[in-house]
Amino acid sequence: MRLADLGERSGVPLATVKYYLREGLLPPGRRINATQAEYDESHLRRLRLVRAMIQVGRIPVATVREVLAHVDDDSLGLTVRLGAALWALPHPAGEAPGAPAEAAGPSREAAGGPAEAAGPSREAASPSREAAVDPHRAAADLLVDELLARLGWSAARELGALSPAHRALVTTLATLHRLGYPLDADDLLPYARTMEQAAAHDLDRMEQLPTPREQTEYAVASAALFEPVLLNLRRLAQCEESNRRYGL
Amino acid sequence: MRLADLGERSGVPLATVKYYLREGLLPPGRRINATQAEYDESHLRRLRLVRAMIQVGRIPVATVREVLAHVDDDSLGLTVRLGAALWALPHPAGEAPGAPAEAAGPSREAAGGPAEAAGPSREAASPSREAAVDPHRAAADLLVDELLARLGWSAARELGALSPAHRALVTTLATLHRLGYPLDADDLLPYARTMEQAAAHDLDRMEQLPTPREQTEYAVASAALFEPVLLNLRRLAQCEESNRRYGL
Repeated sequence: MRLADLGERSGVPLATVKYYLREGLLPPGRRINATQAEYDESHLRRLRLVRAMIQVGRIPVATVREVLAHVDDDSLGLTVRLGAALWALPHPAGEAPGAPAEAAGPSREAAGGPAEAAGPSREAASPSREAAVDPHRAAADLLVDELLARLGWSAARELGALSPAHRALVTTLATLHRLGYPLDADDLLPYARTMEQAAAHDLDRMEQLPTPREQTEYAVASAALFEPVLLNLRRLAQCEESNRRYGL
Repeated sequence: MRLADLGERSGVPLATVKYYLREGLLPPGRRINATQAEYDESHLRRLRLVRAMIQVGRIPVATVREVLAHVDDDSLGLTVRLGAALWALPHPAGEAPGAPAEAAGPSREAAGGPAEAAGPSREAASPSREAAVDPHRAAADLLVDELLARLGWSAARELGALSPAHRALVTTLATLHRLGYPLDADDLLPYARTMEQAAAHDLDRMEQLPTPREQTEYAVASAALFEPVLLNLRRLAQCEESNRRYGL
């Protein structure tokens, strides 16, 4: 199909499609003459993914480019390919701004308009050096270690703080600990078990796709886009269970 | 304890504690003379919750005030009290900006700096009128209806679009449908079942607390603060399961 058809079938404005092409988020079409190129279904699929990552996942363009570089790397085995693509995504870290040397005064909160209140914070990429001095972070480190050992998640244990999900989990638990919500491994185990089941469903669905590239694209879409689905299902389930236990 | 002790024990700067008092987020202490008041453990607990909601949950002050009004309303039964407090929280809706009449051109994406990319969008409070005209939303409405029927979640079905989690779920699924990621009830059922289990654990933990007020405070903290924990456990579980299935 031509560029205009690609825009029409995807519902993405032509100017946006051209912008994605310029930014290298969408691979160039097969050139058929000096002014025209031909696009296929893989372009359409990629275009939908890019738009969803940017508009729904609110993922910065540079991050999208990095994720897609891993998705397209046919030299990688599936676990590393999936891991690299997913690790490049932002991870919600539930971190208090300015923690642990809390600098927040009233002016900071008073200024917290819609932009500041838009969502959970995203973790900075650098692993923290506070472990030795911050008791909350040390407690969170121990807690995650115990949790992974009891779950038998050996890959997650071996990779440890190399994994951004591991770092973000430690940061979140350290923040909750600091704020007076200390969790222990018994608290976390049932949640981890339910997430284990959800991950098995994720991979079952992913395996229905024919190629490693499409599988990796699906994994990225699922990680970046299905989170609001999960969180709202949780809220609905809480309401349902509460009604079941306590009546209306 | 005195105000200064409250600040010290919570680790919250005194100026911030005074700001929360002024804003009515923290109830006044028991006055003991013209210049001093006495605070107790319930103030400390409330202070931690307020700070966590604002700093970790990034919840606007006005929303925190509304949530706490429900938490403190002893006239409500537990289900309604929990529901009212949780419904007042922001719900992540996974909505593309400008959808469905997509207005996003390259300039919008190019401008997507850290502030815009900070997290999932929060749903506006007003229920949409697009159901009649937007086929994606109509499909999402039917899908959620089928899902709830198959789950046997009768309270969620009855409450329907009154519930912000229901509205946010429909909006998210409509957006995914529009972007070329149509899900069906078979896709969603296993996730909903795992969230059902997680909700049962939430309420089990909550019931260990002695009073309806503390229980409702716990439910709010769990909804607002544990989401990054769940999402990062999911990412870790995906990596673990992938390693288990495909090796490294």
